[in-house]
Amino acid sequence: KELNSRVSENGGGNRDDFRQGVVNALERRLFYIPSFKIYRGVAGLYDYGPPGCAVKSNVLAFWREHFVLEENMLEVDCPCVTPEVVLKASGHVDKFTDLMVKDEKTGTCYRADHLLKDFCKDKLEKDLTLPEEKAMEYKRVMATLDDLSGKELGSKLKEYGIVAPDTKNPLSDPYPFNLMFATSIGPSGLSPGYMRPETAQGIFVNFKDLYYYNGNKLPFAAAQIGQAFRNEISPRQGLLRVREFTLAEIEHFVDPDDKSHPKFKDVSNLEFFMYPRDEQKEAKPFKKLQLGDAVKKGNINNETLGYFIGRTYLFLTSLGIDKERLRFRQHMANEMAHYAADCWDAEIESSYGWIECVGIADRSAYDLRAHTEKSGVQLVAQEKFAEPREVEKLVITPSKKEVGLVFKGNQKKVIEALEAMKEAKAMEVRANLEAKGEVEFFVCTLGQSVTLTKNMVSISKEKKKEHQKVFIPSVIEPSFGIGRIIYCLFEHSFYTRPSKAGDEQCNVFRFPPLVAPIKCTVFPLIQKSEYEEVAKLISKALTRARISHKIDITGTSIGKRYARTDELGVPFAITVDSSNSVTVRERDSKDQVRVSVDEVASVVKDVTDGDSTWTDILSRYPLHSSYSSDEGVLIGDIHSKS
Amino acid sequence: KELNSRVSENGGGNRDDFRQGVVNALERRLFYIPSFKIYRGVAGLYDYGPPGCAVKSNVLAFWREHFVLEENMLEVDCPCVTPEVVLKASGHVDKFTDLMVKDEKTGTCYRADHLLKDFCKDKLEKDLTLPEEKAMEYKRVMATLDDLSGKELGSKLKEYGIVAPDTKNPLSDPYPFNLMFATSIGPSGLSPGYMRPETAQGIFVNFKDLYYYNGNKLPFAAAQIGQAFRNEISPRQGLLRVREFTLAEIEHFVDPDDKSHPKFKDVSNLEFFMYPRDEQKEAKPFKKLQLGDAVKKGNINNETLGYFIGRTYLFLTSLGIDKERLRFRQHMANEMAHYAADCWDAEIESSYGWIECVGIADRSAYDLRAHTEKSGVQLVAQEKFAEPREVEKLVITPSKKEVGLVFKGNQKKVIEALEAMKEAKAMEVRANLEAKGEVEFFVCTLGQSVTLTKNMVSISKEKKKEHQKVFIPSVIEPSFGIGRIIYCLFEHSFYTRPSKAGDEQCNVFRFPPLVAPIKCTVFPLIQKSEYEEVAKLISKALTRARISHKIDITGTSIGKRYARTDELGVPFAITVDSSNSVTVRERDSKDQVRVSVDEVASVVKDVTDGDSTWTDILSRYPLHSSYSSDEGVLIGDIHSKS
Repeated sequence: KELNSRVSENGGGNRDDFRQGVVNALERRLFYIPSFKIYRGVAGLYDYGPPGCAVKSNVLAFWREHFVLEENMLEVDCPCVTPEVVLKASGHVDKFTDLMVKDEKTGTCYRADHLLKDFCKDKLEKDLTLPEEKAMEYKRVMATLDDLSGKELGSKLKEYGIVAPDTKNPLSDPYPFNLMFATSIGPSGLSPGYMRPETAQGIFVNFKDLYYYNGNKLPFAAAQIGQAFRNEISPRQGLLRVREFTLAEIEHFVDPDDKSHPKFKDVSNLEFFMYPRDEQKEAKPFKKLQLGDAVKKGNINNETLGYFIGRTYLFLTSLGIDKERLRFRQHMANEMAHYAADCWDAEIESSYGWIECVGIADRSAYDLRAHTEKSGVQLVAQEKFAEPREVEKLVITPSKKEVGLVFKGNQKKVIEALEAMKEAKAMEVRANLEAKGEVEFFVCTLGQSVTLTKNMVSISKEKKKEHQKVFIPSVIEPSFGIGRIIYCLFEHSFYTRPSKAGDEQCNVFRFPPLVAPIKCTVFPLIQKSEYEEVAKLISKALTRARISHKIDITGTSIGKRYARTDELGVPFAITVDSSNSVTVRERDSKDQVRVSVDEVASVVKDVTDGDSTWTDILSRYPLHSSYSSDEGVLIGDIHSKS
Repeated sequence: KELNSRVSENGGGNRDDFRQGVVNALERRLFYIPSFKIYRGVAGLYDYGPPGCAVKSNVLAFWREHFVLEENMLEVDCPCVTPEVVLKASGHVDKFTDLMVKDEKTGTCYRADHLLKDFCKDKLEKDLTLPEEKAMEYKRVMATLDDLSGKELGSKLKEYGIVAPDTKNPLSDPYPFNLMFATSIGPSGLSPGYMRPETAQGIFVNFKDLYYYNGNKLPFAAAQIGQAFRNEISPRQGLLRVREFTLAEIEHFVDPDDKSHPKFKDVSNLEFFMYPRDEQKEAKPFKKLQLGDAVKKGNINNETLGYFIGRTYLFLTSLGIDKERLRFRQHMANEMAHYAADCWDAEIESSYGWIECVGIADRSAYDLRAHTEKSGVQLVAQEKFAEPREVEKLVITPSKKEVGLVFKGNQKKVIEALEAMKEAKAMEVRANLEAKGEVEFFVCTLGQSVTLTKNMVSISKEKKKEHQKVFIPSVIEPSFGIGRIIYCLFEHSFYTRPSKAGDEQCNVFRFPPLVAPIKCTVFPLIQKSEYEEVAKLISKALTRARISHKIDITGTSIGKRYARTDELGVPFAITVDSSNSVTVRERDSKDQVRVSVDEVASVVKDVTDGDSTWTDILSRYPLHSSYSSDEGVLIGDIHSKS
């Protein structure tokens, strides 16, 4: 709804038209380019052209400043090529898959869930005689797509008689396709490897060194920016679902018993759209909540998670993401990995709908435990107590032999479930075992209950003196999909305005100076060597001030030159119309002030670096309105500003 | 020689000891970490830990400023995953290989040239009874290793009886192993791809769009920073020969008839070590030349190439590369690709010898022509003449039929050689053909002369009116191996100094502020809440000024804390010893000045950004020498400075 109103503000009809307008401008101005275009491209691979690349490097520089520098994070830089053992431990070799079906004659591959979704969508949109009951069924299927197993998907495809969309040939049963790009390390062919699907694993395997680097103290955060890869079966949605992308990830390691955050108070007053689990379950709309309240009420699991949600909100809105089209959505219990304590996605509304752009998850100790088990290296933290502490410890000792005898192949899962019991549950089990000799026990990894008998497990509480605590830290992981954020930023920044003559629409990207690809252009008003010399002087001063800029000395009318830079999102334009002073124009208001040649570079620097606002500049320098340059009328034609 | 003197300055014996000292410091302080260490690592893959990662991002930021911003280059960002067709066109699929031999029993792989080199080196170093003649032979083999064909290498290995070093098993014949990491794009298994071996191809395939973006004007440069991959057979030399690395590449497109550069005069007075081809041929030492002279005398092919050599010199020395251990070496004719017009490597001397860190090549029109041919898309530039020009054009028309009849399989190479003739040569060939009916003609791609007869080629000069020139631009390519530069920088920056007590050596990295991983540390002199509050205030001011810094509030002695930060290469340390004023210490001189708390962040910012030098600071603020804090003696022990 919100988007639609924005879209119509922009004069366009619907989402597709709006998107086409943005994408046309982006491609024409080389914000991005389909990769290897002269060879007809490769689906899901895109280049950033010059302005896109500049936006990306501005976004990454700000990310470093906002997160790494501000929190003193330990940034690392690990290779993309990753040996199999690492991704075996992390679970990616076994589980990083999508379900695929093949055209049985041509071998063309499709994502099984896409075909089912397309079928249902098509029916719902086009079949006007669809009975209410069927419509409900299709809607239900679409809502639960992600939960369907391969078998369930296969039987639905069969039931609906879905065939290969291009050939109408029959389809194979769905089977899992691993989404990692596989390769081989070294010449022997004996060392399988993959291109990393995320940057996080590079941090986890270095935990021990990083913890030491931090003086063996928790909490601390490590961060990494880098490429990640995902060999999509059939990429769709343009820049949003690609086969190679830049991630910026943070792994904040914390004592699981203390997830408070000293700087939480700095963000606790922020109010923005959140969509907690309960609201989603009841199909209520999302709403504005105060961050402090959301943590206090337990909507958000802990302060550290809340702190990063708040910082992420500030990050995205500083870039120019519209806060009215940004929400933080909590994962439903069935969306979350079983080990996760809580998980929130920053979702940004685009013409494709709500897009997950940042995931902020409390992954508990899962990753460090997995690598500890696989590598045999203890990825743990130690906290020495000032005084030895007497503690009552829960001791759960399953009998491998007895459990194995009864549950055979499920032995491991039952034992893990027993060992994972929290104190209250364990005490309940013990009481039952003592009273009745057996108890029904739900094993979540089996999805069913089993009957435990007394000889299978001993549960006790023992008093011990402890001098230190040794534990696997929890990790809170904010993970940023940089390309998705940038695409949404493009959409949120784009608008059109009529040219004065009314004969064409002008495209504008309203990037804040922080992310604008070029901060400033320099135009001699007319082709005249005197003006060009001044332009070059200003250009030198801007280079010295490290302001990225562009001179345009073509003879094109000034109005056209403004229009060109508006479409690149350049916030300021300096027009040289005398030897002593020049005008500075702001992109969105089209206001102009007159500034002396000597001062102009530092004025632009101030307003670009955020040390001044445009309003400050307006109050400091005389407004210039002697000609309405946007319309290409040079002199003698004085309009008052609208 | 130069290095040895540096090494002994540092008190160490030889190159290996020096290197071990650097590498120990680098690994201990996590400048880098062998990747996936907890899984016993993977040869040729390294992580940058926190300080290494900071150095890397500083180097890249400066590269962007020094090249991209300064020259208004068009920066792009293309994927690493590359479809086969692109790398087929570029020649990598066929030619990006090393010769490999296999242990015939175990299958272990070795680089054939490495085994031969090791054998010769070993003989020369250890066999004291080696006859002079044999020694000469081994030296000759080592000098010509790169020129040996697979056959020649194989017969040398046989002749010397070289076997697998680990098992003494016999070896296979050498065969080429492609050094690209292979993968498969999409699920079908029908789209082979590779991880790019360089970033340059992403620029070449975009030439048409980039030329348009630049207003269809030459010259212009495009640039790219990104990962590249090389599946080494058996990586050696630590950080210098790795399987994944960051490249920063520039492709400067220029009219082949005009390779002048308007800014060449800005660098023409620079003098530094150059090693032109002729000096190498005559085994003379390299020497200091003035850049302007080197271009004027034709040592360097053209101004644009010279300009980038000069800018590269400035770039490397600004980072802290020692100009006495930096030279620009011209490629010998046999080192250069046949299409290259000229090529110079920036070589930096390290404990491994002279290391190629930047290649600056005039690649003529090779790459754009290759992609034009493969893709069918014309990657050309057009220059419209103000007036039509009458031109005399050389027209060389080989007869495919006649050439094919005589030369069969070599037809293509002969024809290409004919078409590539320059005017003078063509006229000579024509004169000879007319006079004698035949001529000996050297075909460089065959390495031999062939006999041409009159019916094989027609050569004429024709007058034409031309309205424009359509041509494939030449490309001048400066290509920076960022990891190698950083490793050499580590070696050049490293030194040790005795602690006052003389009981241990202190390691120091003398990074300039520009590249230092952390610019400044903040220490309360003693653990005292008042001092800690001041330290926090200063930290906040530094964060606001965007100066990366670190607080160290551990109770460790101030001398130890200085030593720690010296080993990280932190240039400045602020010590809080009162509530009003603090001391600022410079790392290399160990000089300290006293500055007020309010001013200190801006002082550190000035000297870090390069707006002031430390000498300026010394003249502006009172020297502080009331205690010799480096030795951990706090008060009452007043030394005069040495």
